[in-house]
Amino acid sequence: MSLRVTIWNEHRHELKNETVRALYPQALHGAIADGLREHGDFDITIATLDEPCNGLSEERLANTDVLIWWGHTAHKEVLDDTVDRVQQRVLDGMGLVVLHSGHHSKIFRRLMGTTANLKWRESTDKERIWIVSPNHPICEGLPEYFEIEREEMYGEHFDIPDPDELVMVSWFTGGEIFRSGLCYHRGRGRIFYFRPGHETYPTYHHPVVRKVIANAVNWARPLCNGPRPVYGLGFWNKPLEPLPAE
Amino acid sequence: MSLRVTIWNEHRHELKNETVRALYPQALHGAIADGLREHGDFDITIATLDEPCNGLSEERLANTDVLIWWGHTAHKEVLDDTVDRVQQRVLDGMGLVVLHSGHHSKIFRRLMGTTANLKWRESTDKERIWIVSPNHPICEGLPEYFEIEREEMYGEHFDIPDPDELVMVSWFTGGEIFRSGLCYHRGRGRIFYFRPGHETYPTYHHPVVRKVIANAVNWARPLCNGPRPVYGLGFWNKPLEPLPAE
Amino acid sequence: MSLRVTIWNEHRHELKNETVRALYPQALHGAIADGLREHGDFDITIATLDEPCNGLSEERLANTDVLIWWGHTAHKEVLDDTVDRVQQRVLDGMGLVVLHSGHHSKIFRRLMGTTANLKWRESTDKERIWIVSPNHPICEGLPEYFEIEREEMYGEHFDIPDPDELVMVSWFTGGEIFRSGLCYHRGRGRIFYFRPGHETYPTYHHPVVRKVIANAVNWARPLCNGPRPVYGLGFWNKPLEPLPAE
Amino acid sequence: MSLRVTIWNEHRHELKNETVRALYPQALHGAIADGLREHGDFDITIATLDEPCNGLSEERLANTDVLIWWGHTAHKEVLDDTVDRVQQRVLDGMGLVVLHSGHHSKIFRRLMGTTANLKWRESTDKERIWIVSPNHPICEGLPEYFEIEREEMYGEHFDIPDPDELVMVSWFTGGEIFRSGLCYHRGRGRIFYFRPGHETYPTYHHPVVRKVIANAVNWARPLCNGPRPVYGLGFWNKPLEPLPAE
Repeated sequence: MSLRVTIWNEHRHELKNETVRALYPQALHGAIADGLREHGDFDITIATLDEPCNGLSEERLANTDVLIWWGHTAHKEVLDDTVDRVQQRVLDGMGLVVLHSGHHSKIFRRLMGTTANLKWRESTDKERIWIVSPNHPICEGLPEYFEIEREEMYGEHFDIPDPDELVMVSWFTGGEIFRSGLCYHRGRGRIFYFRPGHETYPTYHHPVVRKVIANAVNWARPLCNGPRPVYGLGFWNKPLEPLPAE
Repeated sequence: MSLRVTIWNEHRHELKNETVRALYPQALHGAIADGLREHGDFDITIATLDEPCNGLSEERLANTDVLIWWGHTAHKEVLDDTVDRVQQRVLDGMGLVVLHSGHHSKIFRRLMGTTANLKWRESTDKERIWIVSPNHPICEGLPEYFEIEREEMYGEHFDIPDPDELVMVSWFTGGEIFRSGLCYHRGRGRIFYFRPGHETYPTYHHPVVRKVIANAVNWARPLCNGPRPVYGLGFWNKPLEPLPAE
Repeated sequence: MSLRVTIWNEHRHELKNETVRALYPQALHGAIADGLREHGDFDITIATLDEPCNGLSEERLANTDVLIWWGHTAHKEVLDDTVDRVQQRVLDGMGLVVLHSGHHSKIFRRLMGTTANLKWRESTDKERIWIVSPNHPICEGLPEYFEIEREEMYGEHFDIPDPDELVMVSWFTGGEIFRSGLCYHRGRGRIFYFRPGHETYPTYHHPVVRKVIANAVNWARPLCNGPRPVYGLGFWNKPLEPLPAE
Repeated sequence: MSLRVTIWNEHRHELKNETVRALYPQALHGAIADGLREHGDFDITIATLDEPCNGLSEERLANTDVLIWWGHTAHKEVLDDTVDRVQQRVLDGMGLVVLHSGHHSKIFRRLMGTTANLKWRESTDKERIWIVSPNHPICEGLPEYFEIEREEMYGEHFDIPDPDELVMVSWFTGGEIFRSGLCYHRGRGRIFYFRPGHETYPTYHHPVVRKVIANAVNWARPLCNGPRPVYGLGFWNKPLEPLPAE
């Protein structure tokens, strides 16, 4: 069965900003979906902010293996109920790939427990992304570094928990560095944060960026039949002697 | 200057339960404070749930270097505003030592981003706590393991982020293990979770438990003069040449 | 193409000890191979200590994706040249799954940089292994814990680097715990240490143990086409000046 | 009692190279020692390659709390016996601060288990070092970044184990980044690798570099009275049966 991927896009810039529309005539989610299709047989659904339940109903989430998140200008408009549902689904095993300005989304901050603040600058910076974990599955098919000719700069300090695995670090012309490819384990779910993707640059047409996102989706997929821990009060293993025969 | 420690205690069991009162005539916070005093010259303040602002006003937090948290039966009564203030102070550098059933406190779950669920059983279990990081400052003065004759059992899976440092693991008679001494870095603050301390056992009179808590307070203390990252939009380093003189 | 797995076995106990021979009539490597075959289409080769080059020639290693290592009584007889070759291959991307008493093998100690010392006892201990990372690929198909009726005890402190991912922790009847499922990243290779498997117990016939080893082999496999970092002196991105100037 | 610091210096460049001698008239170890003295009351000893036992006798190591290591051109001349002794002392609790080209020293590679290879270039690069762990004790008194006007470039991929804590990341003019402040825990010892310090630049006169090294020495100091794990065969908690039976 194909991996079921839901791409969530705020979908506001594309409606208001000519530059963005020119770069992404099928919207940001369209370009992200196209990129995925180049690298596998994914079963893709689009969800956007202005749909009922922000497009992320209980049912939609139940049928999502990995959720990709792109948001920027309207983080506050995402309903708290939506954030609750997504958090619960991640802890239950759904993968989450957070892109670029999604660092400030309610859901990412909720899962991190920190502000996710950073430095930023829209300028003429070139971004060069270095692989620091060359054995990581998300690096399949990648060169040792790749460049994005023009991107918004994000700089440290990035106020996040120490990543469980640090995969990539960005260099920017202006003198900044940034931890830009980050793995987290939360509950039974896995989260990847990937920095690039400002809406006024053609980043989601970049072949290496597309490959990274596809790899991340594969890495973040839930186990088919993993352990399902039991929580709460338990005398399941009483009396002590003998311990359960199994 | 002495380290300024605030011990926050829910302070409900002691008022209602004779057993708890007999074990802790000065309340749980009293025993924790006594334990600290055995190991250093701490400037200790007590704060409890039923005080205004849950005892944790902006001013009190501003004058706290490390906050110890004990809560159990009334997590829901802690005001969300209190949780917001404490989280902000931790991210700004205040240390936080979360004890036992505090794993389910709003503040710990907020900072972790997970449910912090676990297995538990009040029974006749002995707990034996093993040190797995013998070079860690929190292990100063400790043996390679120590025992608590009777304690509530907490068992895995413990639904928390992978700790930044795993210091201790508990063994229980009934067949469970538990990651019971855990370090986290969040923002400019440091968090230690320490498992033991059910209210119906004399755990906070245990000499090794007292030593661990004192060590944890020292470990979690804020830097005197650490880096203070700047966040947000910045053109501070443009034009590129020359870079800031420093 | 099938994953190419080489099972390295010291192969001494089976020749000398009737109990071991009775438990493992096809030798330990035979049982490990059988276990793998239950869970996938692996291309399996056996290599043993007393073969030329310890069975691990340059060519054999070049044709191995993942190496499984079982050794116990003859660690010192492994040639240093063999250790050099295996280390180099791991750093170049070959996966390594180290079983049980392999913790004291030259190759594991070489890759860890520590003594890998631990406590041990051959007794009547039951081992109960708890999953602490339920989202890890090595936990696919596993219950939240599993038991081995009788096993040699290994206890902490285990003198190893903090694992990059801690997947499993063992409980033993006698009062010990042990970090027993451990992931490491070294160079372009991935290493999994898995505790169970003393030669005088039927551990490698245990269905969950077999599943774990098969999962570990899959997890440790090299990337097909990962980044190949260049090392050493480099002016590859010269002239410098055009880059920063923009 | 003052912390006992031994500064080990290869001490070859200073004897052969006029530039180095001009920058470091008291040798590299002299400048490093001066830097320490600015930040605390350390009891400092110098040891160099050409002394008997490479200056690191059993007795000298036994009387060292933290060892600083600077080597570059003569790594191969360090005796294997010296490496054995230093490794053992680190595992027994001595701190180790490895500077710059010490990444390729026998002792660092031994403790890491990897090649510690990297990219390098002697050029006109400026280095800007960013703090990514602002709550770390090694960052006491530091700004959020600091610059070294001219330094040798070191670039990723740096072939090392994932650090237990990543404290600093360097940016270089030429387009590279480097993980340049790294904490490791090994045995009962603690290791800090700090990148800057090429012999032809005045780096060890830089006030922030000096502060970092002093902080690192403090961080790496052994516990006064930490756990001393027992290893090997043990029936110390026998008879087993009374324990589980309760």
